[in-house]
Amino acid sequence: MTSPKRKEKYPPDLNEEQMFYLVTQIKDWQINHGSLLKLVESDIEHSVLSQPVGVACFPTLFPRARFQQALGIQEIYNRLYCSVAEDETWILDAIRDLIPVEPLAGALWGIHQAAKKAGSIQDVHLGIFRSDYMLHLSGDSATSPKALPETTLKQIEFNSFSCAGASHANKVANMHRYLTRKGVYTLDDASFDVASLPENKTIRSLASALALAHKTYGRPRSKSAKRTAVLFIVQPYNFNIADERPIEYALWNREEPVPAYRLDWGPEVLQYTRLTENNELLFQPPWLLSTDPLEISVVYLRAGYEAEEYNLTGYEARLQLEKSAAIKCPSILGHLTTFKKVQQALTLPGALERFLSTSDAAAIRETFVHLYPLDETEAGLYARSLVRDQERCVNYILKPSLEGGGNNVYGEDIPGFLASVPESQWSRYILMERIDPPISSNLLMSSAGISSGDVVSELGILGCCLWKANPSEGHCDMLHNSVGGWTFKTKYAEVNEMSVVKGYGCFDTPRLVDT
Amino acid sequence: MTSPKRKEKYPPDLNEEQMFYLVTQIKDWQINHGSLLKLVESDIEHSVLSQPVGVACFPTLFPRARFQQALGIQEIYNRLYCSVAEDETWILDAIRDLIPVEPLAGALWGIHQAAKKAGSIQDVHLGIFRSDYMLHLSGDSATSPKALPETTLKQIEFNSFSCAGASHANKVANMHRYLTRKGVYTLDDASFDVASLPENKTIRSLASALALAHKTYGRPRSKSAKRTAVLFIVQPYNFNIADERPIEYALWNREEPVPAYRLDWGPEVLQYTRLTENNELLFQPPWLLSTDPLEISVVYLRAGYEAEEYNLTGYEARLQLEKSAAIKCPSILGHLTTFKKVQQALTLPGALERFLSTSDAAAIRETFVHLYPLDETEAGLYARSLVRDQERCVNYILKPSLEGGGNNVYGEDIPGFLASVPESQWSRYILMERIDPPISSNLLMSSAGISSGDVVSELGILGCCLWKANPSEGHCDMLHNSVGGWTFKTKYAEVNEMSVVKGYGCFDTPRLVDT
Repeated sequence: MTSPKRKEKYPPDLNEEQMFYLVTQIKDWQINHGSLLKLVESDIEHSVLSQPVGVACFPTLFPRARFQQALGIQEIYNRLYCSVAEDETWILDAIRDLIPVEPLAGALWGIHQAAKKAGSIQDVHLGIFRSDYMLHLSGDSATSPKALPETTLKQIEFNSFSCAGASHANKVANMHRYLTRKGVYTLDDASFDVASLPENKTIRSLASALALAHKTYGRPRSKSAKRTAVLFIVQPYNFNIADERPIEYALWNREEPVPAYRLDWGPEVLQYTRLTENNELLFQPPWLLSTDPLEISVVYLRAGYEAEEYNLTGYEARLQLEKSAAIKCPSILGHLTTFKKVQQALTLPGALERFLSTSDAAAIRETFVHLYPLDETEAGLYARSLVRDQERCVNYILKPSLEGGGNNVYGEDIPGFLASVPESQWSRYILMERIDPPISSNLLMSSAGISSGDVVSELGILGCCLWKANPSEGHCDMLHNSVGGWTFKTKYAEVNEMSVVKGYGCFDTPRLVDT
Repeated sequence: MTSPKRKEKYPPDLNEEQMFYLVTQIKDWQINHGSLLKLVESDIEHSVLSQPVGVACFPTLFPRARFQQALGIQEIYNRLYCSVAEDETWILDAIRDLIPVEPLAGALWGIHQAAKKAGSIQDVHLGIFRSDYMLHLSGDSATSPKALPETTLKQIEFNSFSCAGASHANKVANMHRYLTRKGVYTLDDASFDVASLPENKTIRSLASALALAHKTYGRPRSKSAKRTAVLFIVQPYNFNIADERPIEYALWNREEPVPAYRLDWGPEVLQYTRLTENNELLFQPPWLLSTDPLEISVVYLRAGYEAEEYNLTGYEARLQLEKSAAIKCPSILGHLTTFKKVQQALTLPGALERFLSTSDAAAIRETFVHLYPLDETEAGLYARSLVRDQERCVNYILKPSLEGGGNNVYGEDIPGFLASVPESQWSRYILMERIDPPISSNLLMSSAGISSGDVVSELGILGCCLWKANPSEGHCDMLHNSVGGWTFKTKYAEVNEMSVVKGYGCFDTPRLVDT
């Protein structure tokens, strides 16, 4: 028998047996805990295949102070976005140029107008947000004697709609904590104890927020319904059920179970839900063995984030949901705040102060990088000069005003890309200063492969809030405001995109260190 | 929207939409909760596929009184088998004819002898048992006005070694309870409430039993070890990790975590464990990042149940484990009680009374069907006449004295089969009266397909016990004796074999009814 020496390097170099042991532990844990993606193409009536979601084999080092900072400001971010979501004038100002050129923005604005005209009867709204950050190098890290280089926390984007990853993040945090407790990483190294990996209770938190909204809705208002229920609107043929379903299970598993059902986006919404004359939303699909319809208390949208989903049926479906008395998570206005034009507009002088106190605004602004519109304003004209300059543009990212990072254009690719886009369409984009993240090492494993390398991480903080519109007093009354946990994703440094689904990003857990 | 009528039939006939809804719920639940089988052939370093284990789509009706009866006698069964396991003379008597003809029995007896000669230093043993039953029709069910026909509980077999299915049973019980709570089966039928589906805490129970044995072992005895740990001995390339791993996780997740590791049966046992001069079992595989060996407190065997595993290396591995100071789950003698020859020998007049009080013996005997040896005894000669008679043999099953139902020969196939077996080998078999089970209806789903049909179920009751040999006072002192939960498997009535792995049997939950 050999006696392996303690490794100083992190993560340690593994020999073949150690590597086999580690990946076997991880894959088995994932199979046992639903840390999986469904292979939708394999789905037949009586069976279906699934495979582990991409994960970092070791928890990636992360400065504790930055993690705490991100958690600490989330409730301010929640308040900010609730207030924005109730400020129709400000939102319209921010996205006015977007509406004619960005089909999703156009569709949502149209639905908002139509619902407003029909007369909104629900002024309580639920938000499940996720603010995404990366670390940005500051100071001269080369000469720093500290464990990690000095960094600041910079926001990548703010998601107010259909935030994914919460359940996977919860599971993978549990996995890394289990492996750490088991001594898989460093059996004899007391400094790497499980306390350095933060707990993550996202599934419970999100379910609690939905349950609170459900309770706030109260008893059925329609005479034909005896029960209320939460309705998840989901994309059909979803491979990511291991991210959505746990929240549904958590609702049913509460001490006071909250009924929760799923319905596919599109025609089924119109087929199986209807509005009463008082706009209660009734749900009665033929597959439920029930003679009574359910009255929907909360509509939780996990679909409807792509322009293609808003064909005539999709438009009507979303409008029906929006017009209903159900509490929406989120409302259309809440949804509209997810556009990067809003993120950019909030960086303009005085914008934050419209919604926040000076000190709260300062805490938020600290996480901003430079963001520019590509419009006719002074800032926009400056940005237009940047994107035409092959040298200066290398420090920027061109982002469409949609969610996600899938359609970003990076640095030197920007001028060539924009040459193919009519200038009338440029207002779909914002220009964002590139973040210079510190590089860590890790071993990433996904269906795309496994290898060690330089990696960078992205921290997402989940926020849960329930608010009531209050036009007289500021913009809204907060009924609930809390941090809902976090997501932490790691990718190879040379890859621009963080998509877990495409195998680039891997779920991870921050191993917190005091710098 | 339609208003489905309440269904009186159970399970109800489902239309296409209801069927799709139900199977989607089940498959998604299974993916999220590790109710899966690993597709070992798909296992590559960075990924692996898994698919749902076979399940009954509805909980199958089962008489509450018979379920309670089976639970009620398990502690007696536990005491019986602990006592048998400490009665070497009686065991040898029961399996004497088997040793020369059944390679597994021969190997185990040889290892027992060798370990005994080396001097046993651990007289505490752990048992994780499973007693399997079917219902047997009694009385005239055709004229019975009751919900279910009158039945008695009859034992199929008693497993004292490497009992599988506990974790799957726990998960599937949770699933059926979830679906029931959700109203998937009968949303408006208050009579089908979740209380009719018994809870099943097998994972926690088995982990508790292992943890108790671990605690009983005490602190490390060897000077070179600082920690103790439970060691699972498992088959390599196991597809059934979702049955084994949860027990390991439960040990680590206890308030006072119990370290638990896995080691493949065979050469790795000899490579990575060794005995000290005092027979402490030290474990130090190269993949653990530790400088100290672990001292094994409990060896939990989930491998070594097939004759083929006892080549020279397998023999040496099992001997090393058996000689060690670790508490074995089970010991070789405990393992030998799993042979059907033991089950048959316990049906002989006076056998039960050797180990149990008259009333306990009566409660156990009530679950027996007729079992015959095929030897030269009076009972054996009678059985030999049965198996040669093409008409009378239809009511019997010929079973090899190994575990499981895979090699049984049924009814009219027996004479032809035995014609090909030399009579000198007949003592490998026992002849068992066929049970006449009541037929239920259900919809079974596995990777082999999905369809409705006539089904029969098998109830397994898990028993956990820790005992200390005590030759002076009876046979053993019970340190712990408890029911560990249950398994419930359902198969099509026309299929003889219950194997879940082969897609015949499906995990299920009894829906208890008062007959």
